[in-house]
Amino acid sequence: MNNFSFYSPTYFVFGNERENEAGKYVKRFGGTRVLIHYGGGSVLKNGLLDRVKASLSVEGVTFSELGGVVPNPRSGVVYKGIEICKNEKIDFILAVGGGSVIDSAKAIALGALYDGDFWDFYTGKQSVEKALPVATILTISAAGSEGSTGSVITHEDGMLKRAANGDALRPVFSVLNPELTASLPDYQIACGVTDMMAHVMERYFTNTQNVEITDRISEAVLLTVISEAPKALANREYDALANIMWAGMVAHNDTCGVGRDSDWATHMMEHELSGLYDVAHGAGLAVMFPAWMKYVMKHDVMRFAQFAVRVWGCEMDFQHPEKTALQGIERYEQFVSSIGMPIRFSQLGAKAEDIPTLVKTMGLGENTLGSFVKLTEEDIRKIYELAV
Amino acid sequence: MNNFSFYSPTYFVFGNERENEAGKYVKRFGGTRVLIHYGGGSVLKNGLLDRVKASLSVEGVTFSELGGVVPNPRSGVVYKGIEICKNEKIDFILAVGGGSVIDSAKAIALGALYDGDFWDFYTGKQSVEKALPVATILTISAAGSEGSTGSVITHEDGMLKRAANGDALRPVFSVLNPELTASLPDYQIACGVTDMMAHVMERYFTNTQNVEITDRISEAVLLTVISEAPKALANREYDALANIMWAGMVAHNDTCGVGRDSDWATHMMEHELSGLYDVAHGAGLAVMFPAWMKYVMKHDVMRFAQFAVRVWGCEMDFQHPEKTALQGIERYEQFVSSIGMPIRFSQLGAKAEDIPTLVKTMGLGENTLGSFVKLTEEDIRKIYELAV
Repeated sequence: MNNFSFYSPTYFVFGNERENEAGKYVKRFGGTRVLIHYGGGSVLKNGLLDRVKASLSVEGVTFSELGGVVPNPRSGVVYKGIEICKNEKIDFILAVGGGSVIDSAKAIALGALYDGDFWDFYTGKQSVEKALPVATILTISAAGSEGSTGSVITHEDGMLKRAANGDALRPVFSVLNPELTASLPDYQIACGVTDMMAHVMERYFTNTQNVEITDRISEAVLLTVISEAPKALANREYDALANIMWAGMVAHNDTCGVGRDSDWATHMMEHELSGLYDVAHGAGLAVMFPAWMKYVMKHDVMRFAQFAVRVWGCEMDFQHPEKTALQGIERYEQFVSSIGMPIRFSQLGAKAEDIPTLVKTMGLGENTLGSFVKLTEEDIRKIYELAV
Repeated sequence: MNNFSFYSPTYFVFGNERENEAGKYVKRFGGTRVLIHYGGGSVLKNGLLDRVKASLSVEGVTFSELGGVVPNPRSGVVYKGIEICKNEKIDFILAVGGGSVIDSAKAIALGALYDGDFWDFYTGKQSVEKALPVATILTISAAGSEGSTGSVITHEDGMLKRAANGDALRPVFSVLNPELTASLPDYQIACGVTDMMAHVMERYFTNTQNVEITDRISEAVLLTVISEAPKALANREYDALANIMWAGMVAHNDTCGVGRDSDWATHMMEHELSGLYDVAHGAGLAVMFPAWMKYVMKHDVMRFAQFAVRVWGCEMDFQHPEKTALQGIERYEQFVSSIGMPIRFSQLGAKAEDIPTLVKTMGLGENTLGSFVKLTEEDIRKIYELAV
């Protein structure tokens, strides 16, 4: 096991109707002048935004608003938010939405306390040290951004999708009401499920040996999602939605990463896809993960066999472990397909002839990507081709 | 799934030699004048205390010291510690030791900011609202006190063992170096393992349905401990010790309790045992848990069958689920016995004729104990008798 630090200080407020306590928690965590940040019409139409505002007003907390965040959130809204924060002396940002809104809020929180261009944190020019406190009212189980250090933004100048990370970006509190996810279309629920599985798998396929506790917890999250997703999709059972919502948090607050190296190559390959085609992140991951798995499987067949047996209930073929390993990958592919995800480039609207562009935009050059297997540009090209 | 709040803000600093960073973290979390609290000779003999002091001095942090904590920590040392804190304007408590030292440190932290008797927090006369910041350098994997809200103290006036709980008692940081646990005797390692399994099981046997994520994570912790404990005992493998150490934290920071009711009847029954006989908490739990399980099994046979199949790898008897359920209990009993734990009153030095005293000291009267099955004094008497 590697040495590690683990820090997940977010206060999670979980359950039905708990968004009505938002004002109480904003006050507890020191907010007095809040920017409410959100996406499109749904939080307006379903009355969520009104309930949140009412809970702030009850506590005497004042607020401004900024909507308009789109999936794969853009830099334009971030710049607007930073300007509002600076002009109106905002001291707290409340994100009401899914991963995109939360990531956008984190970017604003960074930029509000920085004199330069917030994009510096996403290009690696600046490291994340301080930000305004961010809290979230989560409306989609997926990204895990409600408990994570990360934020992913697409810059409109070049459509580059890049990430910033740091403890200062962990939300101070997050309200998780599973009921809020019941009205989502099947496709969005399935994308979320695929995303949280990917967050676990990026940490599961590792070269660090003997981290049984993290293996077992990772498998626990995957087993939960596999059993609950069909129930959530079939009839929006509250408990199924609740299990998925909490699984999404555990999948990405680094519980599933402690003590070992993680990979993230597939996420980076997906970022190029969704940067170019504006496809949903989860859908892109559903396409890229089987391709990556098939390409790297031989690097550690027994790891993939463990995944097949413990997560997918495959029977171990002790004479041919590679058959079991491959069966696990096929089961993953069947599962994401069964919940309505694409598994090929064509289903995404992506094109084989764009592969050179995808590889080039990543800008890897002579560097490598990932840690389980260190991928060159040539490897990445081949993996994209496996996904066609 | 029940509504819940989850808050585990402790910063965990995990791995070999990381106690040398204690000073850095004390400073980061605002400590300037520290009380170092510890137990007996081992932390003096093995140089741990010297290393911790050196790391404080490097950061310019001053400190006082108070040793003398014993297993099942006593009120006497707590009163001494509170006096030191008040006289010397201590602003931070650093516990160097196992669960007993940490629990004692938490009691001191409570009392230092309170004008009355610290025992008020343990009798329920006062609720836990504020305390000095506590941090820990953990030397025994067991109690989970390094990440929990709890503290258990035995008052020397009557040898009553009671608990206080509250977010203010969560350590601000905890250093977990598995290597520090390598020199422990087998018996202490086994007691620790039994204690952490109990922390999971108290939360696992619940009437709340459909909390798959918490079930699966609980099973993950148990599976880890079952696979790693024999390796840790056999030859003190670092990775085995590390897995156990992290499992002990996860077992008790409430990760395994979210979204459902938990029980704690067995812990309470054990507290009476170790209060009266001063036996190790883990050893008392090894004796009491099978007795409790056998007594309550019929309340939810399928829950015990799940425990048997998923945790102990038993084959499900679909025609006679109660046979599978019972097999799981037997497998638990065999396991704790195999790592050197007692499973009967006589092995603990406890006596059948003391059972009326044990029941009476608990002081339940007309109330009930536990939530999975609400136990009366009569039930408790019968459970103690099953353990004889």
